[in-house]
Amino acid sequence: MTYCVGMRINRGLVFMSDTRTSAGVDNFSVSRKMFTWTVPGERKITIMTAGNLATTQAMISLLEERSKSAEDRDPSILREQTMFQVARLVGRTLKEVIVDSSEGEQLSQDQFSASVIVGGQIAGGKPTIFLVYPEGNFIEITEDTPYFQIGETKYGKPILVRTYDPDLSFDDALKLLLISFDSTIKANLGVGLPFDVEVYDNDSFSSDRTKRIEATDEIFQSISEDWGKALKEAFGQLPSYTI
Amino acid sequence: MTYCVGMRINRGLVFMSDTRTSAGVDNFSVSRKMFTWTVPGERKITIMTAGNLATTQAMISLLEERSKSAEDRDPSILREQTMFQVARLVGRTLKEVIVDSSEGEQLSQDQFSASVIVGGQIAGGKPTIFLVYPEGNFIEITEDTPYFQIGETKYGKPILVRTYDPDLSFDDALKLLLISFDSTIKANLGVGLPFDVEVYDNDSFSSDRTKRIEATDEIFQSISEDWGKALKEAFGQLPSYTI
Repeated sequence: MTYCVGMRINRGLVFMSDTRTSAGVDNFSVSRKMFTWTVPGERKITIMTAGNLATTQAMISLLEERSKSAEDRDPSILREQTMFQVARLVGRTLKEVIVDSSEGEQLSQDQFSASVIVGGQIAGGKPTIFLVYPEGNFIEITEDTPYFQIGETKYGKPILVRTYDPDLSFDDALKLLLISFDSTIKANLGVGLPFDVEVYDNDSFSSDRTKRIEATDEIFQSISEDWGKALKEAFGQLPSYTI
Repeated sequence: MTYCVGMRINRGLVFMSDTRTSAGVDNFSVSRKMFTWTVPGERKITIMTAGNLATTQAMISLLEERSKSAEDRDPSILREQTMFQVARLVGRTLKEVIVDSSEGEQLSQDQFSASVIVGGQIAGGKPTIFLVYPEGNFIEITEDTPYFQIGETKYGKPILVRTYDPDLSFDDALKLLLISFDSTIKANLGVGLPFDVEVYDNDSFSSDRTKRIEATDEIFQSISEDWGKALKEAFGQLPSYTI
């Protein structure tokens, strides 16, 4: 399992992903699920992946290879003119890997399935985020749907629904995501620390603000503990229900 | 979809279920998922169901029929000596219905699957709750697992994990469940009001304390709205995260 969120606020974009991959609870490891491409001053693209690890690694490798080999005639994530075109490229690549993997197999394509969040900004366009489906098609973030989740989305959703505000500061957006991730890791062993986070300021075209948050991180620990206490206090303030 | 919770606290048992049944978002209706059998002073049994409606209705009908027909030689939910035996009866009946429905069908048994929470007290035993699986086997509530959820369990779980306390009053337990249900209906259209609730005092062997909570219920509305505000306040008190 996996949990990733890509969120747009007025100030920019925020990305957070966990790092646990597992083939059963007896076989888990740490694997990066957030990947970043930057051309300073020109573009900044972040991809987060959920699903079959072989599929997502192959997809990232294909995108990487294409972006590195100048001779390669294939479209490159660094050459696309708009974020929409980037999302199309990611979608085509994802679908290609899934179809390749399942060809001639008894197993259905579901077995090799994966979902992707791709966001960022290319000069001349606005910062935006897409959710790419295994079929290769995708949807874009809107004011009504200002964040996308992939992986184990349910445990961490209620706090996002209740607390998201487009005027959030980056610091508060990170706090919100950390609470959402904390609720998730408390309920699903398939999601785990450390978390990779990235904050993108509108029109900065840079990827300076990234961090890996470890289990020992004191601020995260404090948020996790204090949230439990704050919830209990908030709970105490509400009217009870008598029947 | 469905959401039901059966919870044990030191004072007794609390049950809550939603009432929405649907075959797609274009075809939904209200249907009771909580069923109660009482022999005053002797036993009190509550069953909540999630899954295929034809399966759960058939199971309840079989249990009802058996409990009504004095001549019927089949074991009856009103004749079993212990809650453990009641759980076994429910499990056997559930499995029987699922196997019957899927016999000769192309569809797998999954199609006709259902889960059941059965709880209550029979004189001479303690109040307890069981979670019955479609295979007919079951697990019992413990101090470490003091509540069972069936149906759409994920959205409403974090608040239960954070706030459950065996010393809760009945009123606070209802408040906790209402918050958990409110988080769920805000995220999944398959779960909806009204809610059926029941509170069972240890050793009371009565079913006096039941209620259907409608969408217009003022205390529920107040809990729902105030919880949003309380969460935002609690959120504001936590440390932010700067990178």
